[in-house]
Formats: sequence, C-alpha cells, structure tokens
Amino acid sequence: MKRLFLQEVVARDGFQNEKPFIDTEDKIALINDLSHCGYAKIEVTSFTSPKAIPALRDAEAVMAGIQRQPGVEYTALVPNVRGAERALGCCLDEANLVMSVSDPHNRANLRMTREQSFAQLKEVIGVIGQASIAVNVSLSTAFGCPMQGDVRLDEVLAWIERFAEQGVRGISLCDTTGMAYPTQVQALAQQVRDRFPSLQLTLHFHNTRGMALANTVAALQAGVDRFDASLGGLGGCPYAPGASGNVCMEDLVHMLDLMGHHTGIDLDRVLAASARLPGLVGHDTPSQLLKAGRRLDLHPFPQQAHALARQVSDTPLERAQ
Amino acid sequence: MKRLFLQEVVARDGFQNEKPFIDTEDKIALINDLSHCGYAKIEVTSFTSPKAIPALRDAEAVMAGIQRQPGVEYTALVPNVRGAERALGCCLDEANLVMSVSDPHNRANLRMTREQSFAQLKEVIGVIGQASIAVNVSLSTAFGCPMQGDVRLDEVLAWIERFAEQGVRGISLCDTTGMAYPTQVQALAQQVRDRFPSLQLTLHFHNTRGMALANTVAALQAGVDRFDASLGGLGGCPYAPGASGNVCMEDLVHMLDLMGHHTGIDLDRVLAASARLPGLVGHDTPSQLLKAGRRLDLHPFPQQAHALARQVSDTPLERAQ
Repeated sequence: MKRLFLQEVVARDGFQNEKPFIDTEDKIALINDLSHCGYAKIEVTSFTSPKAIPALRDAEAVMAGIQRQPGVEYTALVPNVRGAERALGCCLDEANLVMSVSDPHNRANLRMTREQSFAQLKEVIGVIGQASIAVNVSLSTAFGCPMQGDVRLDEVLAWIERFAEQGVRGISLCDTTGMAYPTQVQALAQQVRDRFPSLQLTLHFHNTRGMALANTVAALQAGVDRFDASLGGLGGCPYAPGASGNVCMEDLVHMLDLMGHHTGIDLDRVLAASARLPGLVGHDTPSQLLKAGRRLDLHPFPQQAHALARQVSDTPLERAQ
Repeated sequence: MKRLFLQEVVARDGFQNEKPFIDTEDKIALINDLSHCGYAKIEVTSFTSPKAIPALRDAEAVMAGIQRQPGVEYTALVPNVRGAERALGCCLDEANLVMSVSDPHNRANLRMTREQSFAQLKEVIGVIGQASIAVNVSLSTAFGCPMQGDVRLDEVLAWIERFAEQGVRGISLCDTTGMAYPTQVQALAQQVRDRFPSLQLTLHFHNTRGMALANTVAALQAGVDRFDASLGGLGGCPYAPGASGNVCMEDLVHMLDLMGHHTGIDLDRVLAASARLPGLVGHDTPSQLLKAGRRLDLHPFPQQAHALARQVSDTPLERAQ
C-alpha cells in the first residue's frame, strides 16, 4: 500500500464557520499540536477580508505565532490580490485559491461570475508566483452544485486545464455540499489523473450525506493519494443545518490505517487534539471515533454475565478481555 | 448494474433498544408503510422472551396485525425452540437465528458457549424446517468482537460451513459493533461467495465508526447483492454511547441509487416513514439524508446575492436555480 498525504483544514475550513471568536493563542496552540500529528499539509488560516470572515481576522498573528515543523507544509486561503499581498509577508509554503466550477455557486459565494474569478485568480497567481510560493486551486462544487444540480465532468476538466496552463502546482476537487458519490468520484478522479498526471491532486470531501468515506475508497481506487479532512469533522454546511460538513480527519485516518495504507499520522495525537475541540468551539463535533473509540479499543466482559460465563466457558475469561 | 435486495430491520433491531414501549398499533402502521417501500425483506419482530426484550413483547400481535404485501418476505428473530414454537403460529416467511462467532460476545450476549448456541439453533432449525419456513443465520461479530478483538476469517468460514450443512437458506455477516473495514469486508465476502455460492448472503453493517457506506462499496465489489439497514439509522451500540448504530436505510439507498444500482426502493416513501420515527421513539435519529435532503434537492439562490448577481451574470439567474 502506498503513502498517502493527509491535509488538515480545521483551522481554516472548520473555524471559519464558528460563531464565537476563537482566541489567537488557542488557534496557535492547536496548530502547534497538529504540526506533530504527521500531516503533509496544514491549512492555517484565510487572508479574506476580516469583515467577510471575522472568525479568521487574526490571519497574520496566527501565521507569525505558530512553530513550524520540517516536513509539514503550511498553506492558507488567498482570495484576491489584497489577500496575496497580506500573505506574502507571512512565509506561506503554499497559497490556496478558490472558485466554484458552477456559475450560481460562484456568484452566491464569491459575488462574481466565474470569468471574473478566473481573471482575479490569474492576478493572484502572478503575485504569488513571483515570490516562489506554490499555488493550489480549490475548485468548489466539483461534484455538484446545491443550486444548479449536476456539474458536467468536461466543464470541471476545462477549468483544471485553464489553471494548469497558469502553472499551478495543485488542484483540489471539492465536494462542497456533499453531493459526490463513489462511481462519480472514481470517474472524475481517473480522468483528472490521466489528463493531468503532474498536477498534485487533492480530494476534499464533505460527509453531508454520509458518503465521504465511501467516496474516499472510490478515489483510492482511481489512484488518488492526497486528501483534505477536518479534525473532529468541524466545518458546517449552510444548506443543511444539523448535517455533517467536512469529513472527519480521525474517522478518515482510522479507516485508511485499517486498510493498510501508510498515512504517517499519529492517530493518538489526532484524537487528543480532537478531544479539545468542544472546549474551543463550545459544541460537540461529528467525530464518530471520539465517541466509539478505535476498532481495537476493547471493552471489558459485562459484569452481569461473568458468573454464568465462568460456569459455561472452557477457556479462562481473562484471555478474552 | 444488477438488482440489489434491501432488508429493513428497524422494527426489530431498531426498536429492541428503545426504552419507552412503542404501541403495537404504531408498530403495525409503520410496518404497513414499509411494506410499500420496495423492500425484499422486513424483519418484523423477535420471539425472544418478553422478559429479556420487553420492547418486543407484542411479537404475536404485530405479526397478526400487519398487512402483508406480495413480493415482500416477513422475517423475525427466533432465538430458541420456545421462540420457534411461538413463531410457528405466525406464518413467518423466514426465521432469523443468531449467534456470535466470537466466544466472549456469545457468552455476554446469549449466556452460552458457541457450542451450546449451535446445538440449540440446530434444534430450532429442525422445528422451523419441518414447517417449510426458510432459515437465515445471523453471525454476530463476524468482522470483530468488542471484547476479543479480531475474529479469524477461517473461524467465520467454519461456522458458515456448519450451518450450511444444516441446510439453512441464508447467512448474514453482522458487523455488530462497527469494526468492519473495506479491505476486510471485500476479502471475507469474496471468500464466502466463492465457497458457498448457493447461500443467500446478507451483509449487516453498523456505522459506529463511520465506515458502513465504505464497507458497502467494498461488498458490492465482491458481488454482494443483499444488505440489511435500519430506517433512520435506528439501533444503538451498547459499547459506544452516542455513536451511530445500524447503517441508515435512506442513506444507503440514496448512495446505491446514485451508483446506478437497481434497489427497487421508493426513497420518497422511505424518507416519509423515517420522518415519523422521532415521534415514535422520542428522539432524533442519525439519518443524514433526513437533515441534508437528497443530492439533487436543490436550494434557492441566496437572496442577498441576488442583486449583485443579476448585475454580473450574463445568463438568466432562473436557469440556474
């Protein structure tokens, strides 16, 4: 089984939706913990306007405060040239740009047509590229748009091609509202890998309709080796209150480890960090692993069955516990 | 894509864990609704001792009260000869027998060694077989035991063989506490299908650690065509309070439909039935689909973006909604 690359998005994609402001020091402490978990990449923050996303208004302070670990890339969302200029002072390893491949979602989310977004991101790529910082482009609604419905596969490929021509290092296919399903994921991922073999391809799943881990299995079969996920599954979906959002990192890593893949992740450390999230955000998270424990976190034999069991068993109970 | 067979277990596996007693008339009304959803099989109740599982103490009344639909099989759990005798008066299409393939779980759950369980179930098969009722055996902890840990694949195969020799029609491999993972599922399902091609094989997944739909994808790849699931995901896990239990029927059907499989299920009817569950059991269910809606349940364009979007868009907004 090959090496997989896990990318932690909780500090950006997760925290951006949280209502109470999370203290800068708490963000820094969490990211410092995450830096020891074995991630390939950590999305630290977003250089969007503090008015648009007040939860991440401390982008510069967080970038300046974290202790970086060798082998971990630190990325941040950069929406426009203004954001790029702010980011340049922060020693990013990568800038993560974003637009939607569906027209209505791009207009609703970014207040621009897709062509306007592309023109703006081209400028950002120019600014970022001059500083020799890698560029990733996250394509939202790559598996479906909550306003438009299906998004044509050839349209997704066309947008990837336009960004590849701009020399970006990577593309993330984002299942923004959990519309991806396994056969679709396998088909799209296979085509992207065949047509753009040198692009760093990330799949970014949401678990809105419960399919994120099934989609991961399908992506693995198409040879994908890089996945975003969010500690504790933090990160909501504005179109489905109460539903799950980003796929939960610990649930994903747990499955990948069991399947024999080499994730490089220290799951104990991830779980310990996840257990601190409710204290930071003021509510429970959708983490399944935090509630159920790992597969081989065993349980004692129930006491009430002990007496009878001792009579009927021909093997010492202790061996089974 | 081939025909899949979906089997609804909410009325037995779901309701048996609910504390407040669900009225017999409510059970009958729900099962009558479920009979029009396109299921291959419905598990109606359990002929266990009313003292052991008071929630299902009305087994005879429920069996007598439901209106059966042609094409749907009605099954019930039959734990022992006493239960078999009760079941014989109820015109079952199938009796579902159960034991664990792991020793400590069988002792904890059924208060018997596995050999004692096997001997007892052989007697039940004799009684049931004389009445020409089909027999299914559900093997609990087939993918792992919460007290013992891993369960050897050859041990699972050996138990299947012993029941196959008794002439049972079907075997269910039950992931009782959500320990199954995709590569394991594919390996075990493939071996069972290869060695016992004439057995009706059901996979019964729990979503305790989020992997139920991923495991389903793996099982499909091994050629499995029959799955248990529970309306609304009802059915808990005593070893992980707050964690998910049985895989949610509507979430499963939604994915299978999207993948192009023929389930025969009317998802609208399933969702309508699921929406009534909180009223019956007094709490929310883990259904993701009930919160998020189906993949193509589209959302209107956000009002606050309307004005700007109309200015910047070169296509009529209405086309995109």
